[in-house]
Amino acid sequence: MMNFELTREFVENLRSLIERKDEAAVSEIIEALHPADIAEIYEELEIEEAKFLYFLMDDDTGADVITELEEDDRKRFLASLPSDVIAKRFIHKMNSDDAADVLGELDEERQKEVLSHIDDVSTAGDIVDLLNYDEDSAGGLMAKELIKVKESWSIPTCLRSMRRQAEEIDEVYYVYVVDNDDILKGTLSLKRMLLSSADARVKDIYNEDVISVNVNTSSEEVSNIMDKYDLVVLPVVDNIGRLVGRITIDDVVDVMREEAEKDYQYASGITEDVESSDSVWLLTRARIPWLMIGLFGGILGSRVIGGFESYLDNYPQMAFFMPLIAAMGGNVGIQSSAIVVQSLASGDMGIDTAWGKLLKELAVALLNATVMALLIFGYNRLIDSNMALTFTVSVAMFSVVIFASLFGTFVPMLLKRVNVDPAVATGPFITTLNDIIGMFIYLTLGSYFYNTLM
Amino acid sequence: MMNFELTREFVENLRSLIERKDEAAVSEIIEALHPADIAEIYEELEIEEAKFLYFLMDDDTGADVITELEEDDRKRFLASLPSDVIAKRFIHKMNSDDAADVLGELDEERQKEVLSHIDDVSTAGDIVDLLNYDEDSAGGLMAKELIKVKESWSIPTCLRSMRRQAEEIDEVYYVYVVDNDDILKGTLSLKRMLLSSADARVKDIYNEDVISVNVNTSSEEVSNIMDKYDLVVLPVVDNIGRLVGRITIDDVVDVMREEAEKDYQYASGITEDVESSDSVWLLTRARIPWLMIGLFGGILGSRVIGGFESYLDNYPQMAFFMPLIAAMGGNVGIQSSAIVVQSLASGDMGIDTAWGKLLKELAVALLNATVMALLIFGYNRLIDSNMALTFTVSVAMFSVVIFASLFGTFVPMLLKRVNVDPAVATGPFITTLNDIIGMFIYLTLGSYFYNTLM
Repeated sequence: MMNFELTREFVENLRSLIERKDEAAVSEIIEALHPADIAEIYEELEIEEAKFLYFLMDDDTGADVITELEEDDRKRFLASLPSDVIAKRFIHKMNSDDAADVLGELDEERQKEVLSHIDDVSTAGDIVDLLNYDEDSAGGLMAKELIKVKESWSIPTCLRSMRRQAEEIDEVYYVYVVDNDDILKGTLSLKRMLLSSADARVKDIYNEDVISVNVNTSSEEVSNIMDKYDLVVLPVVDNIGRLVGRITIDDVVDVMREEAEKDYQYASGITEDVESSDSVWLLTRARIPWLMIGLFGGILGSRVIGGFESYLDNYPQMAFFMPLIAAMGGNVGIQSSAIVVQSLASGDMGIDTAWGKLLKELAVALLNATVMALLIFGYNRLIDSNMALTFTVSVAMFSVVIFASLFGTFVPMLLKRVNVDPAVATGPFITTLNDIIGMFIYLTLGSYFYNTLM
Repeated sequence: MMNFELTREFVENLRSLIERKDEAAVSEIIEALHPADIAEIYEELEIEEAKFLYFLMDDDTGADVITELEEDDRKRFLASLPSDVIAKRFIHKMNSDDAADVLGELDEERQKEVLSHIDDVSTAGDIVDLLNYDEDSAGGLMAKELIKVKESWSIPTCLRSMRRQAEEIDEVYYVYVVDNDDILKGTLSLKRMLLSSADARVKDIYNEDVISVNVNTSSEEVSNIMDKYDLVVLPVVDNIGRLVGRITIDDVVDVMREEAEKDYQYASGITEDVESSDSVWLLTRARIPWLMIGLFGGILGSRVIGGFESYLDNYPQMAFFMPLIAAMGGNVGIQSSAIVVQSLASGDMGIDTAWGKLLKELAVALLNATVMALLIFGYNRLIDSNMALTFTVSVAMFSVVIFASLFGTFVPMLLKRVNVDPAVATGPFITTLNDIIGMFIYLTLGSYFYNTLM
């Protein structure tokens, strides 16, 4: 039961120990920590300090720490080490999926160098195989390490083989059953093995209902499948059904978290994966693009408004409700897009067709638009605005809500169809566009009503 | 390898079979499906149709289907069944955590009725225990079913006991080691057991480095711990360290998904957990509150603008950049809040103090504000705006970016301090407030510069 909390005092103390090269004290501190905690500490250290720490760890801990680091910290750290150290101290000690992920972050030249230092051909071969798969596919997520038994074996043969296989594998959750051609047939649960008699054979007790995915299945679908069926491990097969690997839930949790964070960042206008502990420069860089698009959109909006200058000269009250209408267009658009984006991401789109969805969105939009238009109409009557302004604001409100709803629903569906991440629709470009179109609708209606009624 | 996709044709075909009461055909269909798929189908059926389906399933499948249903569908379905059926056919067949969750959704009267129909006192007792914990704590997430062995046992004793215990448990991932007082000492991995000799004792081979949580740990912290340490199962102990339950990753994945969805909904202005397949009424209800606050904010904004009417009469060009400044205030505020919210949620706040964070945000804000102000200044010189407008827009841009950044960083930190969900800060209220304050800054600066320079 370790409960480690990273504090400024802890880091300062550690840094001063490192400065004094107090190996004994530093060793004692890191031996009590989990690799994930050490990785957190790494992110606060300079490269040379991190290296000092690193050479005090045993190889297994060192490999785990590297796996746990954030990608940019890992890149920075590995860049400072020679290829043979990376090969012998890390890659060799990692699970094949982690090894492939880490190697995949290096440039090709460096990858070859590191691989040339791995003596065990089968390990190197596994990693090279994994590197060939698309990062966002089941192949890119899976590890090669798994325990498999043949359906024809007896339980004692099975146990002997499992013992041998288990030596290379960290955790045993499932045992897979294959036929003589390595085709996946089912799973053997440890519970069934605990409960079965010694003279049973694998084929009598294994479970045939196994859910698997193809190596080319997208990582999004993998995560939806594991979530829906509450799976901890998911076997991966090739195009003819041979068992080639397995995906564990912790890797998929990372995928899910990244997906959710990315969608959240789009919706809140941030373009890179940043945390409040990142540098000022990184934080600024992540925010400037949205602000630039917002600025550009605002300037475009000012041109649109400028085109109606003569009306504003005569009827300056029209300016009162401009921010309201612009904001409403943007907000309604984000709401509509966000609902579609979430449903697309969870794969839970129900059984409506695309037209059915637009029709339903139209119904929702009509309801919302009517309520909003009536309220703003009532308010304008209450404060005794002139009829032209009252009609302009109310009809513009109605039109903008309808337009932005349909546009916000349509765009992510279109983006999905052309294989662009639909979450882009909640991002700055579409939102700003909605603002401007809202402004245009408002002012056009305004010029019409003022011409007609005044 | 089942690959089920829910289609309109499938549902229509099934409904017509149900209407004809064709038990054989319906049974054949559902036997080929996973409970999670049947749950998806349930959501498209009327209560009476669902009941027809339900009575064709065996109890285990039926209990799994109920567990997999969305909460509102489950409530609707259970309301139509008598208490003894709920007790004997579902609750009795579920894991204790699922049973407690389902019971927790019923009102107290109904809970008592259902519990009175459970004959096995220890099962009922476990469920009652679990119902007492806060839903958002480790106690509320955990299940009672686990396999534990005493450290003093030999491996054969251990295996005999595990066999007995395993009969009641679906999956065996970990075996926990306790002392005679039930205090958690460590874990026994199945791998170690596979590899150890028959005459070893538990205390020689178990792993003492076990991460556990207290029953009162918040579910957010549980999910951060399982994510950080890549855990599949996490043991839960009481205040004196006795092992009382375990949390599995699939329950935590649900927590994580809900947290992420909730944050996303705040950022995109939706107030309920909706999907595009929900009803028009539900979708409207989820969106109206944001729109109402937006409307109210817009009206307040119009009062602010109205207060400067005389300036707008004389200088209508001031209206051109109003939507830009309002939008910028809202956007910058959301960006700042979103970064804090994400860092708070992931527990990854680094080692900066609250003041340190505000100072850093100020640095980021100064950078962004300078860039934006210079760009809009340049644009206004380019199109030859008068100096008053140029200065108004540029200085307002600078001030609004700084103000909204600090406000957006401060509010979620304050909310966290007073135990309100910080994600609220990315919601409608603060965003609209930022819009209005931005407008006020803009117009105040405008009246100053026009008075001074014109």
